[in-house]
Amino acid sequence: MASLITLLTDFGTSDTFVGQMKGMIARIAPEAQVVDLSHEVPAQDIAAAAILLADAVDAFPDNTVHVAVVDPGVGTERAALAVDLGRFKFVGPDNGLITPLLDSGAVRYAAKLDPARLKPKRRSHTFHGRDVFAPAAAYLARGDRPTDLGEHVRTIVTLDLPQPDITDERVVAHVLLIDHFGNLITDLREDALLPWGEKDAPLQIDAAGTPIGGLRRTFADVAESEPVAYIGSSGRLEVAVRNGHAGRVLGLKRGDAIEIRRV
Amino acid sequence: MASLITLLTDFGTSDTFVGQMKGMIARIAPEAQVVDLSHEVPAQDIAAAAILLADAVDAFPDNTVHVAVVDPGVGTERAALAVDLGRFKFVGPDNGLITPLLDSGAVRYAAKLDPARLKPKRRSHTFHGRDVFAPAAAYLARGDRPTDLGEHVRTIVTLDLPQPDITDERVVAHVLLIDHFGNLITDLREDALLPWGEKDAPLQIDAAGTPIGGLRRTFADVAESEPVAYIGSSGRLEVAVRNGHAGRVLGLKRGDAIEIRRV
Amino acid sequence: MASLITLLTDFGTSDTFVGQMKGMIARIAPEAQVVDLSHEVPAQDIAAAAILLADAVDAFPDNTVHVAVVDPGVGTERAALAVDLGRFKFVGPDNGLITPLLDSGAVRYAAKLDPARLKPKRRSHTFHGRDVFAPAAAYLARGDRPTDLGEHVRTIVTLDLPQPDITDERVVAHVLLIDHFGNLITDLREDALLPWGEKDAPLQIDAAGTPIGGLRRTFADVAESEPVAYIGSSGRLEVAVRNGHAGRVLGLKRGDAIEIRRV
Repeated sequence: MASLITLLTDFGTSDTFVGQMKGMIARIAPEAQVVDLSHEVPAQDIAAAAILLADAVDAFPDNTVHVAVVDPGVGTERAALAVDLGRFKFVGPDNGLITPLLDSGAVRYAAKLDPARLKPKRRSHTFHGRDVFAPAAAYLARGDRPTDLGEHVRTIVTLDLPQPDITDERVVAHVLLIDHFGNLITDLREDALLPWGEKDAPLQIDAAGTPIGGLRRTFADVAESEPVAYIGSSGRLEVAVRNGHAGRVLGLKRGDAIEIRRV
Repeated sequence: MASLITLLTDFGTSDTFVGQMKGMIARIAPEAQVVDLSHEVPAQDIAAAAILLADAVDAFPDNTVHVAVVDPGVGTERAALAVDLGRFKFVGPDNGLITPLLDSGAVRYAAKLDPARLKPKRRSHTFHGRDVFAPAAAYLARGDRPTDLGEHVRTIVTLDLPQPDITDERVVAHVLLIDHFGNLITDLREDALLPWGEKDAPLQIDAAGTPIGGLRRTFADVAESEPVAYIGSSGRLEVAVRNGHAGRVLGLKRGDAIEIRRV
Repeated sequence: MASLITLLTDFGTSDTFVGQMKGMIARIAPEAQVVDLSHEVPAQDIAAAAILLADAVDAFPDNTVHVAVVDPGVGTERAALAVDLGRFKFVGPDNGLITPLLDSGAVRYAAKLDPARLKPKRRSHTFHGRDVFAPAAAYLARGDRPTDLGEHVRTIVTLDLPQPDITDERVVAHVLLIDHFGNLITDLREDALLPWGEKDAPLQIDAAGTPIGGLRRTFADVAESEPVAYIGSSGRLEVAVRNGHAGRVLGLKRGDAIEIRRV
């Protein structure tokens, strides 16, 4: 049974790069289903890709192969990885993209991809998405295991991603991403906020000087154009402006702080 | 036999929202085929989505499940619907999105989706695309019926969409949408225009003061850069500029009038 | 066995044009797999589409049906083609789109599509992507042959695409396309450059007055922000700026010359 393959890249969709990856997958695993996560990761922004991927994996069936290619080091000595994380597999460059996934499951096997085992027709030095990662994902979707694709690696590169700063007095979260609607996604997960704030304990949330009020269930809990804080669909604290663009209205950008205190 | 599912949203493609919907569909109906209609509906523009969807359904096989999520009321008390329209099914919020489809077939059954019957792993208050509409569509694609997904609803919310104003003297059509090429799509359907104008009867069409001439077969019937009126691929009167952007050249926007008189 | 169909258009993704093509394919060949090459070809830019398609076909399995619709002449007398090129098939307007593919294989059969054999439900004069090309591709994917879809045509329209200018003294290549990352793709293929330059012979490459140095293996062979020339993933000379946008940094646009001399 061929499983599902997802693709996350910074390739954009104006060229045929993504299509060529899918062509290569179809040559090796014609039965595999391919789903695009996004191809509009800001160019070479590994941290953004890492968060987008980690927040999406829960929606997918078991045994999905997640391919992420944001790869400023293509052509250098950086390794290419295939990693078995139990419920799913990861394929991508060894540049930290996998970091937040490492919290979600134990690494069962991490292989450094060996091009000789991928038998591509040709291999460019600039497009490993097509020539290395797509074939590796296709072999995994067909049932091969990471052990079949390369030698074990003991150490995986990780990133220092923003972490909320939690003291007894207050929590400081940081804006990780701003989504298509202008909503601010933070590094503060529900399971870190709720024990601190106690369920239903009144909180006071401030975003760059704008008081947002307490924690709501959804943006529909405030009036039009009002700011609102809630736990978003990926389990993180988010700040939005109802039917508006919070990033612009509140003047916040990636990395900026959101402060939470008990009332 | 799993059928086809189409997706129409205002989610954009830079985040992973659409990918997560497809992941959820694959968990429930792995054999279903998913086709993107568009994810670039202007944010929260229910009327634009309603027209885009209605004009696309004829191209699809029988039993297709059309999912449309432009949903400014997510998190409020607005209902979520699964509607059997005979040749196809609709899944989406009860906010008027379905309006023009109601003319294309009788409603056989309209269900208010009952989250308890969708058994999602978790359910956010802000992303019903993934947590309500995608599972509902997947169950329908697998062969479940709207009756399996919720109680019957007697009343569906409808929108007041623009309608052409037809008198004995003249027809006034309105610009509904401007497409990627700058062509103006109007609210005047061929079956309303032709009885009025009589087939091949000479007409004089005016767009905001610019005389467009009569009704042509296609834009290739006029010289380069000239304006032209014709029945477009969705059966509506359209105004284009041959190899140009009619919206910009003629200075027209959504809602503007196109006037048609007999010569 | 239904084969793969690829789509390359200038339709954009904000309307439902591409979705409607896929709906029509699913009606005729429900088992066919459809892959998007790109829908962001600059409007009516036949030359760009021709090059994008030709550079992508090698990534796909045998028997793929490649559909390309950049079609300023839709509605005129221009023919619609289905062409058997041996390893794959081409479907699209007879306007030169196929030109660079003609070098990659002998034309076994070229059919002028006969709408009567495509039996579409209806046929617009403005959207042959849905009403002519998608059905033709679906029939081919199902196993029909171009001979089943129309009469043989003896002559196919071709384009004059830029060619490198090669003398004993120097090679002048031209920028064909600028990709999503700003890399400049030229009309000079590896198999024309290497015999001239001799493998590993030192070259001096100039881009609009900026000396680029010799031919490298990949952009990782120069420092950050430095320009670099290498053979790209489609077998063509490319000029990039490492982790920068070569088009903007070097001030080059389509058609501009890159000069190569022996040191």
